[in-house]
Amino acid sequence: MEQIPHTPAIVVDETILNANISAMAEFAATHNLQLRPHAKTHKMGPVAHKQLAAGSSGLSVATLGEAQYFFNAGITDLFIAYPVWATRNDAQLLTRLADDGTLAVATDSVAAVHQLADVTDEHPGVEIMIELNSGHHRSGVFPDQVVPIAQAIAQRNMTLRGVFTFPGHSYAPGAHSTAALDEARVLREAKHILENAGYPTEVLSGGSSPSATATVTDGATEIRPGVYVFGDAQQLELGRIGWDDIALSVVTTVVSSQPAHRDAPARIIVDAGSKILATDKAPWATGHGRVLGHPDARIIALSEHHGTILWDSDRLPAVGTRLRVIPNHVCVAVNLVDEVFLVDHDGAVSTWSVGARGKNA
Amino acid sequence: MEQIPHTPAIVVDETILNANISAMAEFAATHNLQLRPHAKTHKMGPVAHKQLAAGSSGLSVATLGEAQYFFNAGITDLFIAYPVWATRNDAQLLTRLADDGTLAVATDSVAAVHQLADVTDEHPGVEIMIELNSGHHRSGVFPDQVVPIAQAIAQRNMTLRGVFTFPGHSYAPGAHSTAALDEARVLREAKHILENAGYPTEVLSGGSSPSATATVTDGATEIRPGVYVFGDAQQLELGRIGWDDIALSVVTTVVSSQPAHRDAPARIIVDAGSKILATDKAPWATGHGRVLGHPDARIIALSEHHGTILWDSDRLPAVGTRLRVIPNHVCVAVNLVDEVFLVDHDGAVSTWSVGARGKNA
Repeated sequence: MEQIPHTPAIVVDETILNANISAMAEFAATHNLQLRPHAKTHKMGPVAHKQLAAGSSGLSVATLGEAQYFFNAGITDLFIAYPVWATRNDAQLLTRLADDGTLAVATDSVAAVHQLADVTDEHPGVEIMIELNSGHHRSGVFPDQVVPIAQAIAQRNMTLRGVFTFPGHSYAPGAHSTAALDEARVLREAKHILENAGYPTEVLSGGSSPSATATVTDGATEIRPGVYVFGDAQQLELGRIGWDDIALSVVTTVVSSQPAHRDAPARIIVDAGSKILATDKAPWATGHGRVLGHPDARIIALSEHHGTILWDSDRLPAVGTRLRVIPNHVCVAVNLVDEVFLVDHDGAVSTWSVGARGKNA
Repeated sequence: MEQIPHTPAIVVDETILNANISAMAEFAATHNLQLRPHAKTHKMGPVAHKQLAAGSSGLSVATLGEAQYFFNAGITDLFIAYPVWATRNDAQLLTRLADDGTLAVATDSVAAVHQLADVTDEHPGVEIMIELNSGHHRSGVFPDQVVPIAQAIAQRNMTLRGVFTFPGHSYAPGAHSTAALDEARVLREAKHILENAGYPTEVLSGGSSPSATATVTDGATEIRPGVYVFGDAQQLELGRIGWDDIALSVVTTVVSSQPAHRDAPARIIVDAGSKILATDKAPWATGHGRVLGHPDARIIALSEHHGTILWDSDRLPAVGTRLRVIPNHVCVAVNLVDEVFLVDHDGAVSTWSVGARGKNA
């Protein structure tokens, strides 16, 4: 990693990235599932094109800004998997994405359907996916609440594409199978209720990175995993991937190396802090990320530019040593840099721009 | 806040910002302390110029990249308050900052002193501040460990400016006074030890936003608070500032409004998530930030683009409603946007670029 000019920096192993993309595409194809990966994880055109080349029909994105970036990068089949509250400022972009591409937008309320219809002048090309709550209790309605939303869509001459859910409660040890069953249950229930009310739906979309490969295939027609392209410490500690599946890490330098003294523990400080690793830490996480090649080291604290590590032996690395740290949650780490470094096995370095970084709106 | 084109977005109240800058400058002047604010909080030239106009001699920064940005913005007295491990790639910048301005760099090891001397060809204009551990147990040495570092500085013909510490353990309820006392103790002790060893020092630098106004003035000659310019939910919940001192907030839209149903609690979802508020949450924090004007509302969860709020009454705000949320830790929130909006009392909107955003190296 000495070829990286400054630390901290994010590096991507393209060989592992390619393998991760292929494996998920193969899973989806084998199980007759559409794969619409969530691009908020990588925010990069080149990664999206790899996903499409492997068989994805299109992408999921989180914001209109991400949709615009990927559309301009040549990816025209987009699902904004977020209950967008559209405003007049969004009208032109929504119309363009629908006219020149294939667009779906999420909703979980009658009011947002009317707002979207008002803003787009009832554009039937802006297809709508109703968001369901499968147990994560974030946005989304329960199946017994979908009919008024479908009615509003019909009333405004908009197009109902289907229903979707994010089983975010899969992010806990051992929870992925239960979450996948919950997902299948609400997707089937909603489909049944909508059909009985005269609103047949084709697309039933689910999937998170922990639960995607546990998807109940007669409960979903489509999956939307995101993190799987890079992997991260969360997926590792949930046991959903192995160390060899980690395609992305943060190259960092040891800037302070302190043997135990008075009441201060032996520790090293690296220059990867919360402004590159982010502070995400689930209650079950063992620390603020993991150290590649040192599974027993623990990142016990993060400041903005300091990672405090309890090392795996008494022989602390010297200041100036470079290490590689795996972020807990890769989506928020990538969003903190302008570019990532691709390091080839022959030592050559190239960069990719994180083109949709900061596209929060 | 209807004049902000898209949400989520960061807005700054310039009147409160000016008042915060004046108040800290007045405290420092009254107590005969130099004020060298930490610019990692705001990362913006216009804010730095306000700080200098109010009497700050220079800035503290966290990285070489931040130093370069502020130098180019016309602020030439800079202290990199971080134990930099300099490389040959940094030589040109370090030399320029020292030749054309006033530069100090932190260290906490003999090895980093030699590295800095090697990289800068023993440039005496690159002054050195030794970092002390006053109880936060991050980087920094104890006073009884400073002499070998001072010896290395002398041996390499470099310049010792003084000692500094960050009393980060001030970030706990009621801890600011104790942290300020710890800070004063290690600064005095280190000065005494260095003097006895033949290395007199003038500058004793301390201060965090919680502890700055509790600084023991015969223990420090300089303070380096950062957060005070904007305030945030952490300072509020620590009782160090009031609601009226909050200069920065995130304008956000309610995108989902869900009454209680089955086992899901009544809640609203806003479009401010961890990609604009960041996930920092101290053990004593009441949630992931606070809602302006609704002190009893609680942000119980954050995803990347979702903030889940338990509201302060049964009358949930409708989807489309705009609210203002105060981040827990403002330094990491500002680093997530390219620009902030200044909103005047007559409704006019202007923007400032966050010029040093993402300058992690």
